[in-house]
Amino acid sequence: MSINKKRIIYLLGALLIVISLTMTPSLLVALIYKEYKCAKAFIFTISLCLLIGIAFKRNHKFEFSKFNNREGYLIVTLCWFLSSIFGCLPFIISGSIPNIIDAFFETCSGFSTTGASILTDIEALPMSMLFWRSFTHWVGGMGIIVFAMAFLPKLGISGQLIASAETPGPTLDKLTPRFSDTAKNLYLIYLFISILEVLLLLLGGLNLFDALIHTFGTVGTGGFSNHNASVAYYDSDFVHWIIIIFMIISGTNFNLYYLSLKKGLNTIFKDEEFKFYISTITLFAFFITLCLLLNGKENNFFTALTKATFQVSSIVTATGFATDDFDIWPTFAKMLIFILMFMGASSSSTGGGVKMIRILVALKLIFRGFSLKTHNTRIISVKINKKALPSDTISNIANFIFLYIATVLLATFLISVDNFDILTNLSSVAACIANIGPGFSLVGPTMNYSMFSGFSKIILSIVMIAGRLELFTFFILFSRYYRDPNRA
Amino acid sequence: MSINKKRIIYLLGALLIVISLTMTPSLLVALIYKEYKCAKAFIFTISLCLLIGIAFKRNHKFEFSKFNNREGYLIVTLCWFLSSIFGCLPFIISGSIPNIIDAFFETCSGFSTTGASILTDIEALPMSMLFWRSFTHWVGGMGIIVFAMAFLPKLGISGQLIASAETPGPTLDKLTPRFSDTAKNLYLIYLFISILEVLLLLLGGLNLFDALIHTFGTVGTGGFSNHNASVAYYDSDFVHWIIIIFMIISGTNFNLYYLSLKKGLNTIFKDEEFKFYISTITLFAFFITLCLLLNGKENNFFTALTKATFQVSSIVTATGFATDDFDIWPTFAKMLIFILMFMGASSSSTGGGVKMIRILVALKLIFRGFSLKTHNTRIISVKINKKALPSDTISNIANFIFLYIATVLLATFLISVDNFDILTNLSSVAACIANIGPGFSLVGPTMNYSMFSGFSKIILSIVMIAGRLELFTFFILFSRYYRDPNRA
Repeated sequence: MSINKKRIIYLLGALLIVISLTMTPSLLVALIYKEYKCAKAFIFTISLCLLIGIAFKRNHKFEFSKFNNREGYLIVTLCWFLSSIFGCLPFIISGSIPNIIDAFFETCSGFSTTGASILTDIEALPMSMLFWRSFTHWVGGMGIIVFAMAFLPKLGISGQLIASAETPGPTLDKLTPRFSDTAKNLYLIYLFISILEVLLLLLGGLNLFDALIHTFGTVGTGGFSNHNASVAYYDSDFVHWIIIIFMIISGTNFNLYYLSLKKGLNTIFKDEEFKFYISTITLFAFFITLCLLLNGKENNFFTALTKATFQVSSIVTATGFATDDFDIWPTFAKMLIFILMFMGASSSSTGGGVKMIRILVALKLIFRGFSLKTHNTRIISVKINKKALPSDTISNIANFIFLYIATVLLATFLISVDNFDILTNLSSVAACIANIGPGFSLVGPTMNYSMFSGFSKIILSIVMIAGRLELFTFFILFSRYYRDPNRA
Repeated sequence: MSINKKRIIYLLGALLIVISLTMTPSLLVALIYKEYKCAKAFIFTISLCLLIGIAFKRNHKFEFSKFNNREGYLIVTLCWFLSSIFGCLPFIISGSIPNIIDAFFETCSGFSTTGASILTDIEALPMSMLFWRSFTHWVGGMGIIVFAMAFLPKLGISGQLIASAETPGPTLDKLTPRFSDTAKNLYLIYLFISILEVLLLLLGGLNLFDALIHTFGTVGTGGFSNHNASVAYYDSDFVHWIIIIFMIISGTNFNLYYLSLKKGLNTIFKDEEFKFYISTITLFAFFITLCLLLNGKENNFFTALTKATFQVSSIVTATGFATDDFDIWPTFAKMLIFILMFMGASSSSTGGGVKMIRILVALKLIFRGFSLKTHNTRIISVKINKKALPSDTISNIANFIFLYIATVLLATFLISVDNFDILTNLSSVAACIANIGPGFSLVGPTMNYSMFSGFSKIILSIVMIAGRLELFTFFILFSRYYRDPNRA
C-alpha cells in the first residue's frame, strides 16, 4: 500500500485540466457582460491550469486498476484543496476579492457546497464572478456524487447500505466500466434535475442568469445567491416552493433515483432513510409554523408554512438559502433550526451534515439499548430497510459521530481566539462542517463571515472541506496509521 | 421479571425512614440556632416520613435475593424522586422557599448533587435550611456511590471495568454480604474524606458551619454554598486549594481508593481513566491560566493558576463552586469550560457528566477508526488498562453518548418555550444533566435559575435526576421494553 507519487501527479494534472474546463462557462459570461478585467483573470487562470495540468500528465502512464486506499484518500482531499486554491485565482486577479484568504475561503465554501460568504455586498461583484462563485457549487455537488459512490462505501456508510444488493461495491479499488456506467447515469440525473429547475425558475419569472445561479445553489445544496437578500429577493411563493422542492430532491440519496429508474418510483418511498428525512422536514416545519403563528411573527398560515418549510429544507439539506432571518425567530423555532444543523441530508446526496441515515441508526441504537437492558442475554440487531446492519457498520457510524463532535468542539475552540461569542463560534463551525452556510448570532442569515480573523477563516475553510469529505478521508491523512500503514 | 409491588412498597417505606433520619441533623441545627419555625417544619416532615415509612414497611416481608432488574430501575429512580418530594417539604412548610416547584427544583438539585439554585439571595435562608440544602448533597453523593457500585455494571460501564478482576459483579441481582462489605468500606472512605476536609477547612479559618456546608458541597460534588459569592467569599488561597484538591478527590473513582487500600497507592496512578482525568484538568487549567494572563484578566501567575484550576476542577467534577465569574472570561477560556461541561468526572465517583472513561473510549474509537481504514481486514480492539473491551461495552458506551446528546437537545428544545437565548438554554441543560450547577449567560456563576418558568424548572429537575442516574435507569421506565419485557 505504498503511495505512487507519479500516479498522484498524473491525476492532479488531470484535475487541473478539468478545473480549467469548468472555468470556461464563466469566461463566456465575462465576455457576454463585457467584463474584460474578469475575462483576463479567467484566461490567465485557465492557461495556468492547462499548462501545469499538461506538464503533470506528461511522461506518466496511468494505470487505473492499481489505485489503492491511501492514494485514494490523498487524491480526494487534494482535489478539493487544489480546486479551491486554483479556483480562487480569478477572484484575486480580477480584484473582486483581493484578499487571498478571503478568496480562498469563498472558493472552499463554493466547492464544498457550503455557501458561507465573507462578502458584505454580494451584488457589488461582477456578473462573471457571481457566476463562477455559484458554478463551484454545481461542480462540487457533482464531485461529491462520485465521491459518495466511490468512497463512502469504504467509510462504512453510503447508498451501498441501502442498495448493496443492487450496486455491489463500486469502490475506487475497482473502477470498472460498471462504475463509469453508474457515474454516468448519476451525472445524467444530476443534469436532468438541474435543467428542470432552471426551466421552472424561468417559469417563475427569474431571468436566465438568476435561474442558473439559484439552480447551482440548489442542486449542489450550496446556497450562494447573487442577491444580498438571498431568495427573499423574490417575492413569489411559487419560486420559494420550487426551490424548497429542489432542495429536498437534491438532499435525497441519488442512488434512489437510479434505482427507481430501474425498479419504479416505489423504491424511493419504501426507503427508510427517505421516510425519516421527509418526516423530519414535515415535523420540524410543522412545529416552526405553529411557533411563528403563536408568537405573532406571522399572521398568515400559508406565509408561515412557506417560511418554515423553506428554512427547514434549506438547513437540513445544508443548502443555506434564506427567505427569512431565522436568527430573530423565537428561541423555540431557533432551537429546531439548531438541531437540524447537526442532522444533515441523506447519504449519497449533495447535502452535508451527519446525514439522516447515521442519525437514524444512532436513534435505533438508543432504543436497542433499552431493549438490551431488559433482555440481558439476547442479541438484538439494528435493522435498516429490514436488513440487519453488520456490527462494523454500526461501529463506523459511532466513530463518525464521535469524530464529528470532536471536530466541532476542537474547531470552535480554535476560532474562539477571535473572542466572538460561543454561539457565533459554535454555529459557524456547525454550519461549515455540515456545509450549510449561515449560522446564528454574528453569522446569522443576514450576516456573513467577514469579521473572522485570517486564522479562523483558514480553520473554517479546512472544516468545510473535511466535512464535505466525511471527515475520515481528510483526518486520516494526519494519522500515524496513514504514515505507517504497517503499524499495529 | 414481573414487578412485585409489595416489595417496591416495602423498600420505599425503608427509604422514607432513611429520609427522616437524614433530616435529624438539620433539626438539631434548627434547635441550636433557635429557628423554631424551621424546627417545626423538620419535625412535621420527619414524623410524616416515619409514619408513611412504617405503614409501608408493615405487613411486607422483604426478600432481598429475589430482586430483579426492572424492580431495580424503578426503585432507584423512585428513590431520587421521593427523596426530592419529601425533602422539599421543610423548605415549603417553613416558608423559606414557599413556591412548591422552586422547593422541588432546589431539593432535586441537592440530592442529584447538581447545585443549581433558584435562590436569588442564598444568605437570607435560615441556617438550618442552608444546612439541609447542603446536606442533601452529601446524602446524594453517598447514594450515588452505592448506585455506581450496584447499578452501573448493568449499564455496561463502571469501576467494574477497571477492577473487574478484583470485585466481580456486585450487582443488584446478587446483593450478597460481599456487596454490603464493599459498600461499607466505600462509606467509610467517603466519611474519612469528609472528616479530613472539614478539619482542613477549619484549619483554613472557616467556622464549623461553613466547613461542614462546603465539605458537603465538595465531597458530594454538589456545589451549594451558604454564601452568595460561593467560595469566592473566602479570600484565602489555602481554602481554595483545599477545595480544589477535595473536588478532584471526590471526582476520582472510589473503587480505586478501595483497591489502593489493598494493593498500594500505585493502583490509582496506573489507572488509565485517572491518568486521563488528571491530564485533562492539568491541560485545561494550563490553557486557561495562559489565556487569563495573556488577555490581562489577571496579572499574577499564581492567582490566574488558582482561579483556572479551581474553575476547571469545579466544572469537570460537576461540583459547580465558583471563585470567579467565568462567564466574563475571554471566549477562548469559556469554550474550554463549555467543553468540560460535557466531559464529567470519573466513573464510580460522586461527580457527574458523560464521565472520563466514556470520553476516553470514544477518543480511542476514533483512532481505531483511522487504523481500521488503513488496515481493511484487521480486527483492532480498544483497550483500557491493557485489557481489550468487549464489543457490547463499546456499544453500551456509544448508546449512552447518543442518549446523552439526544436528551440534551430534547430538553434544550423543551425549555426554549421560555424564549431565553440558546446558550442559556443549552448550558442550563448541560449543567443540569451533568449535575454541575452554573452554566453560561443567564445561568452564569453569578446568576441563578429563578427566571425559568415552572414548566422549565420541572424539565430541568427531571434532567438532573436522569443525568444523576446515568440516563438509562430513568429513561428505560418509559420504554416499551420496560412495560413489556417479552417484546422483541
